[in-house]
Amino acid sequence: MTYKLVLLRHGESEWNAKNLFTGWVDVPLSEKGIEEARRGGTLLTEAGIAPDVVHTSLLRRAITTANLALDAADRHWIPVKRSWRLNERHYGALQGKNKKETLAEFGEEQFMTWRRSYDVPPPEIELGSEYSQDADPRYEGAPLVRTEALKQVLERALPYWDDEIVPDLKEGRTVLVAAHGNSLRALVKHLDGISDEAIAGLNIPTGIPLVYELDESLVPITSGGTYLDPEAAKDAIAAVANQGR
Amino acid sequence: MTYKLVLLRHGESEWNAKNLFTGWVDVPLSEKGIEEARRGGTLLTEAGIAPDVVHTSLLRRAITTANLALDAADRHWIPVKRSWRLNERHYGALQGKNKKETLAEFGEEQFMTWRRSYDVPPPEIELGSEYSQDADPRYEGAPLVRTEALKQVLERALPYWDDEIVPDLKEGRTVLVAAHGNSLRALVKHLDGISDEAIAGLNIPTGIPLVYELDESLVPITSGGTYLDPEAAKDAIAAVANQGR
Repeated sequence: MTYKLVLLRHGESEWNAKNLFTGWVDVPLSEKGIEEARRGGTLLTEAGIAPDVVHTSLLRRAITTANLALDAADRHWIPVKRSWRLNERHYGALQGKNKKETLAEFGEEQFMTWRRSYDVPPPEIELGSEYSQDADPRYEGAPLVRTEALKQVLERALPYWDDEIVPDLKEGRTVLVAAHGNSLRALVKHLDGISDEAIAGLNIPTGIPLVYELDESLVPITSGGTYLDPEAAKDAIAAVANQGR
Repeated sequence: MTYKLVLLRHGESEWNAKNLFTGWVDVPLSEKGIEEARRGGTLLTEAGIAPDVVHTSLLRRAITTANLALDAADRHWIPVKRSWRLNERHYGALQGKNKKETLAEFGEEQFMTWRRSYDVPPPEIELGSEYSQDADPRYEGAPLVRTEALKQVLERALPYWDDEIVPDLKEGRTVLVAAHGNSLRALVKHLDGISDEAIAGLNIPTGIPLVYELDESLVPITSGGTYLDPEAAKDAIAAVANQGR
């Protein structure tokens, strides 16, 4: 008995296209992102992978990606679960800022620390400011988040993995998780047992399903999983690594 | 304490536009239907109505309508529940047939009996035929449906109303039900206590949210509910009544 998990990072958003830090700001997919999402669904169909349940964040770029990919894969009718615990990393005071300008303003070292360090979060966002979510009704009942490093993303994503995703896997369901660069990096770090240092070098491309077959102890049969379009994934990983340059 | 329920019939589908009987055949929205769905969401926002949970059928024209309307209303992140019990009426052997040709072939009386009688279903669909759903994985575990009159729709929708929708209402949630002409007519028949005869005259327009405020016994405060765009609803109801002519 093995379990099947599919991770799907949302396609390009309007702010990816503008090179802004997005985090929890709820921006829509760009036209390119919409196409990426549909193609993600087509890749699922071509691989004969039929998700039985989908888990998404509370952000529309992941939700729309799931909707479009599942429609393209003729699996639009499966059960849906959502949680803020699958949200992108909260980028704190950087939310809404241009990546290139932030790099120029703070310098390479500080920039890369905020982007890639495991446990150094950016400065907290000001409450009540334009890109803060402190008054957003969707986070009622959730703890107030003002900034996160990857460490905090992992800490809030893991309970959801354990309580909601693992039970679906153990019922034999093929589980699709439609989420974000950093919430998916957190899950991959956990699954593949990647160190705090090595995770900095791991990028997940947009729109290309990453398939994990897991053994009974939920350990990946193939470390790192398998991208459904490995060539495109390789190119995209290289492109993500160059963001902000 | 009152409860708030919003019923939303999907926008025009590609087969509505072609004047074919659709039933459980899973056709997509037309461009017009996509616009209707978005406008439904805008009407919700303008009325200050924020759904807390959405229930849909398993058919993409209702699912996409819910997705687009909720995105337009900035409520794309709410919990989602789906059931075949909210599906359109199964149109039996008529599925895939042209309404005008069916009218010409079988005559006005038979045609209107199949379309509007409370308890006379069309002939059963042939199993394994192009427009039958007997091998569709989404209906695994559900009883095999080969044709339905409105009576059968009500009988299979009511358990879902009682077990899934009413509990959400009683928790104080604003509930959106995105479904179909006949599954919504069945719910309205139940809510407003409409007779088997009188329900024949009731049409629900596409894309215009129908809002019910219900008292503690789940009886509508205003019989028939309130359309968010009453003028457009009146025109659309007249147009539906003339379908197939």
